[in-house]
Amino acid sequence: MDAEIISVGTELLLGQILNTNTKYLSERLAELGINVYTHTTVGDNLERLQHALRTAAGRVDLVITTGGLGPTGDDITREALAAHLQMPLMISAAEEAKIKAHFTKRGLDWVASNSKQAAYFEGSSFLTNEVGTAPGLALKTSACSFILLPGPPREMQTMFAKYALPWMKKTIIDPSVLPLHSQVLKFMGVSESKLELILQDLLDNQTDPTLALYAKPGEIQLRITSRAQNPACFEAIIQPELLEVRKRTSQYLVAVNDGTLTSTLAAILNQKRLTLSTAESCTGGLLGGMITADAGASRYYLGSVVAYSNDVKTRLLDIPAEIIAAHGAVSEPVAKAMAAGVIKQTGSDIGISITGIAGPDGGSPEKPVGLVYIAVKTRDQEFCAPFTLSGDRDTIRQRAAVTALHQLWKLLR
Amino acid sequence: MDAEIISVGTELLLGQILNTNTKYLSERLAELGINVYTHTTVGDNLERLQHALRTAAGRVDLVITTGGLGPTGDDITREALAAHLQMPLMISAAEEAKIKAHFTKRGLDWVASNSKQAAYFEGSSFLTNEVGTAPGLALKTSACSFILLPGPPREMQTMFAKYALPWMKKTIIDPSVLPLHSQVLKFMGVSESKLELILQDLLDNQTDPTLALYAKPGEIQLRITSRAQNPACFEAIIQPELLEVRKRTSQYLVAVNDGTLTSTLAAILNQKRLTLSTAESCTGGLLGGMITADAGASRYYLGSVVAYSNDVKTRLLDIPAEIIAAHGAVSEPVAKAMAAGVIKQTGSDIGISITGIAGPDGGSPEKPVGLVYIAVKTRDQEFCAPFTLSGDRDTIRQRAAVTALHQLWKLLR
Repeated sequence: MDAEIISVGTELLLGQILNTNTKYLSERLAELGINVYTHTTVGDNLERLQHALRTAAGRVDLVITTGGLGPTGDDITREALAAHLQMPLMISAAEEAKIKAHFTKRGLDWVASNSKQAAYFEGSSFLTNEVGTAPGLALKTSACSFILLPGPPREMQTMFAKYALPWMKKTIIDPSVLPLHSQVLKFMGVSESKLELILQDLLDNQTDPTLALYAKPGEIQLRITSRAQNPACFEAIIQPELLEVRKRTSQYLVAVNDGTLTSTLAAILNQKRLTLSTAESCTGGLLGGMITADAGASRYYLGSVVAYSNDVKTRLLDIPAEIIAAHGAVSEPVAKAMAAGVIKQTGSDIGISITGIAGPDGGSPEKPVGLVYIAVKTRDQEFCAPFTLSGDRDTIRQRAAVTALHQLWKLLR
Repeated sequence: MDAEIISVGTELLLGQILNTNTKYLSERLAELGINVYTHTTVGDNLERLQHALRTAAGRVDLVITTGGLGPTGDDITREALAAHLQMPLMISAAEEAKIKAHFTKRGLDWVASNSKQAAYFEGSSFLTNEVGTAPGLALKTSACSFILLPGPPREMQTMFAKYALPWMKKTIIDPSVLPLHSQVLKFMGVSESKLELILQDLLDNQTDPTLALYAKPGEIQLRITSRAQNPACFEAIIQPELLEVRKRTSQYLVAVNDGTLTSTLAAILNQKRLTLSTAESCTGGLLGGMITADAGASRYYLGSVVAYSNDVKTRLLDIPAEIIAAHGAVSEPVAKAMAAGVIKQTGSDIGISITGIAGPDGGSPEKPVGLVYIAVKTRDQEFCAPFTLSGDRDTIRQRAAVTALHQLWKLLR
């Protein structure tokens, strides 16, 4: 089955609100094994919406719209579908009574224009709106099915999950078509093109499962997808490809599915019963912020010293002022001393430090903006190296923090 | 001028990523007074992308695409435009050298497929990618103009603001149409409905300039907009409304235009020659990360102690273990002691501390998830209060850091 999603709302075209509805619906449709080839957004304009409905209905089996179901003159999704189908809209007295009751309950004055929210087509089903006022509509015609959902994300999501989905399963979904499943592998320290080369033959000769590479900020992802009865069958189907991919890429593979570099590190630290602390300069606390984003970080993370000024480096991390004077704050000796200093101060097993020049100012020919020293010290290993990171201040800081975590992973795995 | 935005990427159709690019571009185009009537998203499919380009180019003056500019076989935006325009793609040796240099600098292996990112059309201009690898392209044809931007939002936004926008102003925007200008006022500590009430008469009777309220995460914004020859004329046009708004809202107005709460604080701290340090528990470094996001933070920010474990609170902030034992780590005495402790350790004029329960676990009936104590201590003032913040772990942590900065602003302004 092929579907299209049409979002309706001038505020979307003006960029006033972010369209989260298409992401939500696309995810749900993918899970059902329904193909989505196009998303379209149009404004509160009868002619253009009618055109979008006609185009979509001409090429897919299911059209889902969001938005334009409210009471005001701008809300024209039902009217546009009526014009497209050349079917009259009728008012349901029962639905109108429900909407009136909603107004009474919330102590709001009834305004006559609200009645239009009770409009329906012959053969259509109302979809209950548990969160707001306007009900949705679902209609199967011989050519194409239509599901009209409200625009506010909470109303839309609740209505889709509790009413539209059951309607789809009962009315239009072929129970013999298997749903899509996927597994996502996350890689660091390798470029997308290098990974493509490593996996070239698998990517070129894919049939089932399918494999697709995506570059995300700071990592590359490989998605392995197949249709299967259930998760266990899916695991069995992808097993050969998955093992082969893992064999070739283990040195870069940092996480799987919902996992992240930090959750992988958390698992390793917990398993090895190691504690961690950090000493940050140019990242100003971002590294600690990333580590503590995971609930449960208190099991292995003790804390951080953000030594933004040189004086604080000396006061709180015991770094001799002479070392800073001789080598500069952005240097290998200072990075190493920061990692050692924070271990001493917090009593952790492992210390990570970052000191660098995030820019836009403060660079020099010898130490340009983007130069970052990262040190990782464990009980028996020590790593320290300079990295030259590109991007603006924010990007350099983010990359420095992620690179530091990646170095820890390389040391621990 | 009419424009359309086409987003390219199968991952968007699968709902794997949220499309923030169309919102960003739609906002920018609205500011320029360019009409946007349709957004379209298609997958990495040559035929469907070519169809979307043909449809859009047939009805508007400018088509902007995002995504599909990378090095892999899936990246086909340039090829689709070449097919639509029936123009050949050529490889620029100069751009290829730039991309190679980017690889060398980051220590990644060069793979030949990267060369396709240096492809261009006769008459097109490269748009520099300061954040990533793939450059963009801009091309004016007699029928329609095309701007090809990369998919990753940071790359796209930087490229649009610094390279595509200047190209548009030079090449395709009619200078006789007065451009839209706007001023944005940013408020904290007040609800959208309260602000609407305060400004009711101004909002009801607006003609030129226009006023619009938007709720953003953590703040409410008022946008004052008018067409004007230049910024000075715009300032003159909005002067009466602006003064009136400022008079009524000064206690909530934290920043203007590109300003942020942190940049406002930076200006105050620099002007008063005060230094700041922070002591964080549940935010794990986020507060320091926010403060040091602004270049120049080293003038007033000395550093932070992230005391995630109670032991580190005692070791690094001199908080007696008995106080923690008696009141709990999330308490007024501990918050106050953290602020005082970090001032003592770093020698700063001001200390801010945060200690709370970010969840999802760790809450109790007396101290529920979302309870956060914030203390701000200056030479002559001290503030400390509990806040009950809602949302998931990430939201609570973000809100705690922003609330702490807002309390500092209220104390200093």
